[in-house]
Amino acid sequence: MPRYALKIEYDGSPFSGWQRQTDQPTVQGTLEAALAKLESEVPSIVGAGRTDAGVHAWGQIAHCDLRKPWQGERLCAALNYHLRPHPIAITACAPVASDWHARFSAIARTYVFRLVVRPGPLTHHRGLAWRVSHDLDTEAMAEGAAHLLGRHDFTTFRSSICQSQSPIKTLDRLDISAKDYPGGGREIQFHVEARSFLHNQVRSFVGTLERVGAGSWSPARVGEALMARDRAACGPVCPPHGLYLAEVRYPKDPFL
Amino acid sequence: MPRYALKIEYDGSPFSGWQRQTDQPTVQGTLEAALAKLESEVPSIVGAGRTDAGVHAWGQIAHCDLRKPWQGERLCAALNYHLRPHPIAITACAPVASDWHARFSAIARTYVFRLVVRPGPLTHHRGLAWRVSHDLDTEAMAEGAAHLLGRHDFTTFRSSICQSQSPIKTLDRLDISAKDYPGGGREIQFHVEARSFLHNQVRSFVGTLERVGAGSWSPARVGEALMARDRAACGPVCPPHGLYLAEVRYPKDPFL
Repeated sequence: MPRYALKIEYDGSPFSGWQRQTDQPTVQGTLEAALAKLESEVPSIVGAGRTDAGVHAWGQIAHCDLRKPWQGERLCAALNYHLRPHPIAITACAPVASDWHARFSAIARTYVFRLVVRPGPLTHHRGLAWRVSHDLDTEAMAEGAAHLLGRHDFTTFRSSICQSQSPIKTLDRLDISAKDYPGGGREIQFHVEARSFLHNQVRSFVGTLERVGAGSWSPARVGEALMARDRAACGPVCPPHGLYLAEVRYPKDPFL
Repeated sequence: MPRYALKIEYDGSPFSGWQRQTDQPTVQGTLEAALAKLESEVPSIVGAGRTDAGVHAWGQIAHCDLRKPWQGERLCAALNYHLRPHPIAITACAPVASDWHARFSAIARTYVFRLVVRPGPLTHHRGLAWRVSHDLDTEAMAEGAAHLLGRHDFTTFRSSICQSQSPIKTLDRLDISAKDYPGGGREIQFHVEARSFLHNQVRSFVGTLERVGAGSWSPARVGEALMARDRAACGPVCPPHGLYLAEVRYPKDPFL
């Protein structure tokens, strides 16, 4: 069966996360239902990252096996047609080798977290960013974030239900940038990159760094929390709806 | 009665435009209902621009008259509380002179139109931008737009139901910029500025310039359409949901 890589954008708001569940709407389940309109008995698809309920994607990657040979753009158009009206878009499709694996072939994942600082509520981006009303010191946040870079035991920043075999991961990037937000306020973006992540790792980072930005944690306390290797040392886990799976990288881009 | 200027952001999707209607949800009607929670018999509010159904605002300005003296931040917070769960946010409030008028005191209005070019549908920004699937030549569009700058009879680009006394307006700015769109594709933004606008003028410009970008109109035809002073010479009017009332300027910023 020919294998295809899919690049997927979605608004996570109406879904109970990526992973298929029998009684809840999920991104994987919705995609598999669209694939079933093209061919019967399509095997389960595999995603590069299992995003939680409310988490979004600009560049989730999945693979699927189909019996028929498809031209990439045609498969995109057919899937987008059958995905309506769900807020899921296939932005690229390409044939890949039969041993190519969306999850295991990936060499890096980038998440972006959008945080908007302003007193009033969000309108256009409700559910698409986390809004806090107090100003944040981004320099202090960057100083705190620097403690997290590199290879560490991230037990502190790992959900208690995380299924990863080891808490040791290498964080390659945690950049914090700020820009004006249209309508008033500031948008702070966190760009976070690693080969792979623990469950809730990015939300644990952002929730902890928000406490640093608000002045209730010192930047040094982030390093102490990391060294504690204790979930209880983590700051609050922030809400899911500012988080985007932005990019998944492979040794060779399957869509080029 | 003390008069207050309000700066207002809204998602126009669920509203039948700005202007109050007896049987439809409108931005003005929703705001007046929130004001009525603060004081009884609040006079009608006046907005700087009457946005159509589906049109958004980052910086709509209105004025209202209240009996009680209010501190700006408190009035913001109280209104935002009573506006829930509607996608309307008051982002600034300030006392102004009793002869200050949101509409007549304004000296410039800026609209932004967001157009996304990509084959697949939008997810996060559905209803927040106009999506077209074919690529657009932004240089040709800018060449077409140049014909519109300055003082002209804009009859061609004016809705047949426009209530403005004269079709003569001065267009001060029509800039077109492009950037990458997250998830794939390009976002083209139109920044359009004038002292005031005719009804449907920006959407008539964007719909016409889209035809230029797609190659079905020459840039010169935009100038010919303008000179025709004939509504029938206009290109298609584009949909409302990419349009944002971005800024209204006054001789002195009331919120500083």
